[in-house]
Parts: sequence; C-alpha cells; structure tokens
Amino acid sequence: MIATRGRGFYEFTDEVTARVRAAKMQTGQVALHLQHTSASLLIQENADPEVRRDFERFFARLVPDGDSLFEHTAEGDDDMPAHVRTALTAVNLTIPITAGALALGTWQGIYLWEHRTAPHRRRVVLHFIGE
Amino acid sequence: MIATRGRGFYEFTDEVTARVRAAKMQTGQVALHLQHTSASLLIQENADPEVRRDFERFFARLVPDGDSLFEHTAEGDDDMPAHVRTALTAVNLTIPITAGALALGTWQGIYLWEHRTAPHRRRVVLHFIGE
Amino acid sequence: MIATRGRGFYEFTDEVTARVRAAKMQTGQVALHLQHTSASLLIQENADPEVRRDFERFFARLVPDGDSLFEHTAEGDDDMPAHVRTALTAVNLTIPITAGALALGTWQGIYLWEHRTAPHRRRVVLHFIGE
Repeated sequence: MIATRGRGFYEFTDEVTARVRAAKMQTGQVALHLQHTSASLLIQENADPEVRRDFERFFARLVPDGDSLFEHTAEGDDDMPAHVRTALTAVNLTIPITAGALALGTWQGIYLWEHRTAPHRRRVVLHFIGE
Repeated sequence: MIATRGRGFYEFTDEVTARVRAAKMQTGQVALHLQHTSASLLIQENADPEVRRDFERFFARLVPDGDSLFEHTAEGDDDMPAHVRTALTAVNLTIPITAGALALGTWQGIYLWEHRTAPHRRRVVLHFIGE
Repeated sequence: MIATRGRGFYEFTDEVTARVRAAKMQTGQVALHLQHTSASLLIQENADPEVRRDFERFFARLVPDGDSLFEHTAEGDDDMPAHVRTALTAVNLTIPITAGALALGTWQGIYLWEHRTAPHRRRVVLHFIGE
C-alpha cells in the first residue's frame, strides 16, 4: 500500500528489494500489479529529479486536464486524463531476480506514478516465482 | 479467440476468471499474450462506458487515421495508426492469482482493444504458473 | 547485449528463439527485461520496413528532440525525449512458450528500439520459467 500526496512519482525500489531479501530468492522473477486504473507503475531513471518534472510537463501537455474532448467528467477534470496516462504507461511489470537481487539497470528505479491530483491510497500486489 | 466487430473495447475478464477456476489454481500468475500487432490488451475501468468512448476519442485525435505522415498505407488508412496505438499500449500482461482469483482491483477489467476498423479474429495465449 | 548504431529498431527474435531451443523448454514463458531508461522493448510487425520508418516519424513528431518544454537537457537534446519514448512503450515483456517455441503471432517480431541518436550497448536480461 502506497499513500500518495497527489500527482507525482513515488519510488518504492527499496521496498521491493526488501521483499526479495525476505523471500531469500536467488533466481526467479517478481510480478508487480497495481490494482488501479488512474495510476501507473513505471521503471525510470532515478538520478536527476528534473527527469520526473519533465515527465509531468510532457504528460500534462499531451493529456490536458479539463480537455473538452472528454465526456467522462463526473469524477473531476483530472480523472479521464488519469485513465489515459495509465493506458499510455503500464499497471504491471515483471522483473527478473538474479544472484539474489532485482536485475535492474544502474539508473532504473521502480515508481508508482500517481495521476490524480488528490492524495490516494494505492495497492500493489507482488508475486514471486523462483527459488 | 475473440471475434471483434471492428474498432472498440471487448471485455474478457470473465473468460480469464473461468480459466483460473478450471485450472484450480490458488496462488500464481497468468501471462496473457496477444498474437497481433494492430490490437492491444488493456486493463482499465469497467464501470462507465463513457470512459471507453473517451479513450477512442483521445486516440483518434492522437493518432489520426489517414495521417499524411504515414508512408505505410497499402493495408488501409487505419493500419499504421493501429500499429502505433498498439505500441502505445501493450500486447502482454501478467496478473497475479491470489486465493484462487485474479488479483484485479475493484474497477479493473481486462479488455481486448481492437484498433482496426474492420472485424478481426484475435488470438490471446494464456499461460498459468502456480499451484 | 545488443550494440546499437543509434536511433532505430534492432530485431532479436532469432536470438531469443535460439535461447528457448538451448533451454530445451517445451511449455513455459520467458520474461525479457531491458536494463535501460532510454530504449524500449517492442513486439511489432516484422514484415514491411515502412512500418518502422513510420514509427520513427510518429514518435519524432510526438516527442520532438530539443523541445523547449524540457528542463533536463544536460545529456543532449535527444535524452529526455528518449526517456519519454521509453515510458510510452515498455522495458519488459513476457512471452509464453508452447510446443517448444515462442508463442508469437505470424507477424510479430521482438525489437530493441533505441531512442538515443548515438550508438549504445544495451543489455537485455532473459528469465525462463517452465519445463
């Protein structure tokens, strides 16, 4: 469960790493599934915070809140854009585990990307396979 | 195999759920792979049909049929846009299974999203791992 | 490891097929994970090279190099667009294996899509599950 403070990136690589260690898994994979339709899972660069700000700017321009194109506005003018941003990214990831660790690249971090402007509680299901 | 009537969303959550029950799997995961390059698999909100209409509107604006940018037009002016829409979404998904059921969120449904305007027969391969 | 010559598509379906054969796996799945944040894995049509050229044209228009929107420019004016193109596509794929072969559709090929303009060395981790 990840409590968000509204739109933005919330890294949880360390939490997944801790779960890999607790499972004492050496070789395998972990599947991550986010149980929501207005937030995403994203593996992206975790070094420079400018990158995340640019992501927000780009998606705000690509899928503007309050776009008159959208009919589904009853849940707020950021709701339908949040669904579209989710579809353009992903809600599930599969990451290999090798030598007891996530096989992520040097600059890869695992993020929950909240697309709604209000805070939400987001649930991620992890499933491990391996030995 | 899913027979589509052309562009639009075709939910098949119930079919996947039935396959989970038939496999009597309690804990595991199912990988879904769509064997096509002009249709997608998408997990999205299955409550309000407005949401799917807005998805169609947004993608029709983002990747217009007949865009003069495209060189690959021999298979119809909706073919290259269908490839692009597929790349912007996904052709494979992995969903955890917990307590004998798909670990989907309350509002999540599994859709085949047909991007071609003509009817097509689309094949989805399911692979189960677990016990 | 795939050595790219800069932006473009690099098919490696045959390499994955060879790995499936070497593993003598009959039924299972392979998870592919790309350890980078400025290149993608994409399953797309492998017949007509026009399709890949149109993909490049579309993404060059959607996420232009040197866009003044972007703050993160220290690594080159194609770097932030490369991150966005990666987020809009995927860095991991899961493909079922049936009857000893990848369960790909007739027209599906597996591509590394390099988004940086300069050559790069890209690492893909494969993880097999099955028997």
